[in-house]
Amino acid sequence: MAKIPVAVLGATGAVGQHFVRLLADHPWFEIVALAASDRSEGRPYKEACSWVIAGDMPAAVRDMVVVRPAPPLPARLAFSALPVPAAREVEPAFAQAGYAVCSNTAAFRYDPDVPLVIPEVNADHLSLIEGQRARRGWPGFIVTSPNCTTTGLVMAVKPLDVDFGLRKVFVATMQALSGAGYPGIPSLDIMDNVVPYIGGEEEKMERETRLLLGQVASGQRSEAAITISAQTNRVPVLDGHTLCVSAGFERPPSPEEAVQVLQQFRGPSSVSDLPSAPQAPLVVRHENDRPQPRRDRDVQDGMVVSVGRVRKCPLLDLRMVVVVHNTRRGAAGGALLNAELLVKQGLVA
Amino acid sequence: MAKIPVAVLGATGAVGQHFVRLLADHPWFEIVALAASDRSEGRPYKEACSWVIAGDMPAAVRDMVVVRPAPPLPARLAFSALPVPAAREVEPAFAQAGYAVCSNTAAFRYDPDVPLVIPEVNADHLSLIEGQRARRGWPGFIVTSPNCTTTGLVMAVKPLDVDFGLRKVFVATMQALSGAGYPGIPSLDIMDNVVPYIGGEEEKMERETRLLLGQVASGQRSEAAITISAQTNRVPVLDGHTLCVSAGFERPPSPEEAVQVLQQFRGPSSVSDLPSAPQAPLVVRHENDRPQPRRDRDVQDGMVVSVGRVRKCPLLDLRMVVVVHNTRRGAAGGALLNAELLVKQGLVA
Amino acid sequence: MAKIPVAVLGATGAVGQHFVRLLADHPWFEIVALAASDRSEGRPYKEACSWVIAGDMPAAVRDMVVVRPAPPLPARLAFSALPVPAAREVEPAFAQAGYAVCSNTAAFRYDPDVPLVIPEVNADHLSLIEGQRARRGWPGFIVTSPNCTTTGLVMAVKPLDVDFGLRKVFVATMQALSGAGYPGIPSLDIMDNVVPYIGGEEEKMERETRLLLGQVASGQRSEAAITISAQTNRVPVLDGHTLCVSAGFERPPSPEEAVQVLQQFRGPSSVSDLPSAPQAPLVVRHENDRPQPRRDRDVQDGMVVSVGRVRKCPLLDLRMVVVVHNTRRGAAGGALLNAELLVKQGLVA
Amino acid sequence: MAKIPVAVLGATGAVGQHFVRLLADHPWFEIVALAASDRSEGRPYKEACSWVIAGDMPAAVRDMVVVRPAPPLPARLAFSALPVPAAREVEPAFAQAGYAVCSNTAAFRYDPDVPLVIPEVNADHLSLIEGQRARRGWPGFIVTSPNCTTTGLVMAVKPLDVDFGLRKVFVATMQALSGAGYPGIPSLDIMDNVVPYIGGEEEKMERETRLLLGQVASGQRSEAAITISAQTNRVPVLDGHTLCVSAGFERPPSPEEAVQVLQQFRGPSSVSDLPSAPQAPLVVRHENDRPQPRRDRDVQDGMVVSVGRVRKCPLLDLRMVVVVHNTRRGAAGGALLNAELLVKQGLVA
Repeated sequence: MAKIPVAVLGATGAVGQHFVRLLADHPWFEIVALAASDRSEGRPYKEACSWVIAGDMPAAVRDMVVVRPAPPLPARLAFSALPVPAAREVEPAFAQAGYAVCSNTAAFRYDPDVPLVIPEVNADHLSLIEGQRARRGWPGFIVTSPNCTTTGLVMAVKPLDVDFGLRKVFVATMQALSGAGYPGIPSLDIMDNVVPYIGGEEEKMERETRLLLGQVASGQRSEAAITISAQTNRVPVLDGHTLCVSAGFERPPSPEEAVQVLQQFRGPSSVSDLPSAPQAPLVVRHENDRPQPRRDRDVQDGMVVSVGRVRKCPLLDLRMVVVVHNTRRGAAGGALLNAELLVKQGLVA
Repeated sequence: MAKIPVAVLGATGAVGQHFVRLLADHPWFEIVALAASDRSEGRPYKEACSWVIAGDMPAAVRDMVVVRPAPPLPARLAFSALPVPAAREVEPAFAQAGYAVCSNTAAFRYDPDVPLVIPEVNADHLSLIEGQRARRGWPGFIVTSPNCTTTGLVMAVKPLDVDFGLRKVFVATMQALSGAGYPGIPSLDIMDNVVPYIGGEEEKMERETRLLLGQVASGQRSEAAITISAQTNRVPVLDGHTLCVSAGFERPPSPEEAVQVLQQFRGPSSVSDLPSAPQAPLVVRHENDRPQPRRDRDVQDGMVVSVGRVRKCPLLDLRMVVVVHNTRRGAAGGALLNAELLVKQGLVA
Repeated sequence: MAKIPVAVLGATGAVGQHFVRLLADHPWFEIVALAASDRSEGRPYKEACSWVIAGDMPAAVRDMVVVRPAPPLPARLAFSALPVPAAREVEPAFAQAGYAVCSNTAAFRYDPDVPLVIPEVNADHLSLIEGQRARRGWPGFIVTSPNCTTTGLVMAVKPLDVDFGLRKVFVATMQALSGAGYPGIPSLDIMDNVVPYIGGEEEKMERETRLLLGQVASGQRSEAAITISAQTNRVPVLDGHTLCVSAGFERPPSPEEAVQVLQQFRGPSSVSDLPSAPQAPLVVRHENDRPQPRRDRDVQDGMVVSVGRVRKCPLLDLRMVVVVHNTRRGAAGGALLNAELLVKQGLVA
Repeated sequence: MAKIPVAVLGATGAVGQHFVRLLADHPWFEIVALAASDRSEGRPYKEACSWVIAGDMPAAVRDMVVVRPAPPLPARLAFSALPVPAAREVEPAFAQAGYAVCSNTAAFRYDPDVPLVIPEVNADHLSLIEGQRARRGWPGFIVTSPNCTTTGLVMAVKPLDVDFGLRKVFVATMQALSGAGYPGIPSLDIMDNVVPYIGGEEEKMERETRLLLGQVASGQRSEAAITISAQTNRVPVLDGHTLCVSAGFERPPSPEEAVQVLQQFRGPSSVSDLPSAPQAPLVVRHENDRPQPRRDRDVQDGMVVSVGRVRKCPLLDLRMVVVVHNTRRGAAGGALLNAELLVKQGLVA
């Protein structure tokens, strides 16, 4: 089977580089265009891009000339890692021109007809695409993936929500440096330190969680009736966000019941055999000091979310600790999994 | 006035060294004895002690010969930084022999007749001493100071409890390496990492908070009716614990009211002019990314607790961030302040 | 072909764990025995061993019961990661009992009839084995691999020595935490710090370099006539030692000539197709700020040494920067490559 | 005595902030003007300046309005922390207008009539000022202080040069993050890493060392005949540069002789009673693992350079380790000490 030609929009930034790395050996997709802002346009990728992520730049893209992020491009699907202001212009232009756009930006996450999707959690939200196309008159469409921290939280609570009815969540995060992009956080700000603030992050977590756990019916999305209080912090960790979660339920489970449900969680069968999907999306650790970001972030190339310390909470029902790889499952890997699901569902022309 | 001769029990450990440093230039106290376990006994302090804290060992103690931690010692007050098993034997022996013991260990913190005290918070709990002496037949007595993390939490919520009636607390901590003593946490465990577990810490915080905010009446101590859920984590920070707090009240204040009460908080007048007492025990930061452990831990030699990000909570009433210097206010400095209060109240013979 | 049964001596320590990890999927070797000191004996490996390295413990060894490090064991080759005092007793016992011993300890590194080998550098030193067996009356033998830092230095200067005659080396190191084993360096000693001392390391580097670059003729090993000055430092890096090297030669090359020789360096053909051998043992970086330990330590599973900043030196002839993965090429991986070479040369019965 | 009114040029950058902090309580100087580039002009310092150094911004400057860095200013002396391009224009303008300029930039460090001075090392170089004024027709003048790393090296080798005749120096550095200013090094570049390159630093060290140790005679400065090879590295340390030094001498001392000379080193008497001068500029550590940047950078407010591990070198004569506080002695503190010396010598009108 010929590979599907894809473009990366915003290819020179940190998330764009993660897309490039993940796509370099992908069984279904082949990069045919790298697009970025004017300053990079016309230069070979190896010169336009200061490669800041692990490993060397894949050989196949080194000499590819960076193009302007505008249609037409010789691709059928576009991954977007653009900054929000650029994304607001560029992503609709591609959808308008017939492309499938898998976006990792926040530009359209909250639009009611744009699916915000984690395949194992709410693959059915893709049904919003039909209305999106109809309403906007687009031959193509936009699908978005959530904020990195939200991804970890929602994957960990989804199976519990299904079985026990999630109602309240306290979450305090300890987030990795790579979540701020590059150059991101100055070393003088974070070495031997914690910064107890990440702009907009708490609001994103509180809102996106309700969207992801909400229902889509008759082409309408409703938010889940869950109250969430998030406190977000930056810590001196390179990759991997850690979340301390307390959760309250309609039908409170025991820790043992919760662990069993978490361990048995699988995505829908249409998801579990996608190339980037892990066999099981969650792993439950039983050691009392796990999960830890450095030791648990790389499970199955960072696509698995680790959960541990599942125990009773004096205030709500359960406490637990969650680790998610923020640039893999929480960013480029999550958007890639969305793209694979779109292909599987026949939504990429 | 002649200085009061004091002993440091457990003088060679990390907290013991902090006592030694703080006492080196103290206006009221003078170190006359350094005591530690058998291995150190009989050796000059400079040889028995591997000095691991900032600055050089004070000249006055370098050649002092380490003695066995047992009475009699030529002191009237003993600061204890002993390990818990040793403290269980040694602290009562000194109280029995007529000494005032200011302990930073957990050995007797939960005994109903042993005061657990932060001077600005519950100086009145010292009234338990009378019953302690009577019941145990001791001419001396034991006073304890709380766990480092609890100290930060309780100092920050005390003024709010007084005015608004604290009922529920959710707290997630990011704790410094020095809280684990020396050698403490291996660098291979914590560099580029978070360890989401500190043995016994969550239980200590939940219990000690209720004791510190409880009432003493007719020689009896009752625990405060507050429900607390703590999640404790170790992060790669040298000194200074950071706490993300959500609090629920009987009469919920607005963030502005809470800030005003926090800023106006002063200890009782008997406390505020003690040598180690800061003018105001709390400082409220107004920047959206403060307090931070590295930038806020050293205010007034680490005796001030910093509070910031006071804002509404979707689940309880208020959220805020607290930073406390764990080895100063949270350990040796806190116990020293207790000792100063004892002297002021005429309880050190 | 049936795999060769091997034992790991000192299997519960950090280097032992690296052996276990590398051997888990090895095409030629199969772990049949895990041996460690008395405290671990008789317990399943998963309980006896606190797994401190990346990834989970391989499933195949989790339930293997740890045995005493003494012959007989159902293996033909033993990898030794024992502490030096234990190695002095145990390694000869295995050689005496007919086993091939590949040791990563310093116990016998300096014995004149014990080969100290890096396959690409001095595979011919294995000829010492014959005399070792004859002199000691052993059916088996001991082969050793060098200190981690020396490995990086010698691999980088070997090709220059061959072509230009190395005479003087000045080397200052910045060494990773994992080089000190586990628990190793307390975080309170190394966070936001450098420790400019590693016990015995400078002497090891100066001596082992002369041995590795020396000649073996008629069963006698002579040290190379090279003067070396080493300064070794511990820095807050998890894995990967960085070396700043200045070198003086009999026939000084230009930086361009040196780069060419480094790039073209290959081990003997008997080495380059061993399972753990990288295609080229050295990689030369051309960016002015590389190699860096985090970004270059993992090339080809850490078996490649990276060299960069090759430039003139005002005092000697050339300066350069070298990065070596200390626990892979510099420890377990190096000893494993030695074992593969022994098999290839028919020295493992 | 009325304080001397001073201006800080480049007051909003990191070095400028250090000047502001050091001058806040200075016995001789009083800040009357804070100058910075156009973007800051006209705004209160507290708004124009993002305060990134330890402690809070001094109250006295918070509301001072930032002015343009051009004469006239109501000061007699100007401290310059300007970027090099700005310094090339601004510093001569102030000298031309009659001000004494104490510069911490590299703009004029290498001009033959501009003194490059460390007071304890070469106070006599101030005699170049006379020629500078005559040649340039300036009523004022410029005096410069060296690069931070050079300052540490030169202070440590100066006494040895005087007694034993320094001829050759190898130096490898491990430099702190604050040396790169703010925002400086991205945390993603330096956490768990070493960057073996600092642009221009090796050339600066090699050249400035020869200038500082050179002679001034008849108004002419000659470079010292010393060959220096520097290798500079950035490491994850907040403050304090560490240097591994090997030195060769005309009359090689024993380590014991060297230690004695280092310990006895004092600046000229005109220097040692300046307000910012430490009693002894050097401290020699005798522990085998000192000096360390975190534990030794703050001696006497960072104005003392620490030396340790003085021992024989197999290649040259002596090896040693040096720690210097890069932003104190190595930057703002060094320039301030120069200013104090100028006042003492009657050179500030």
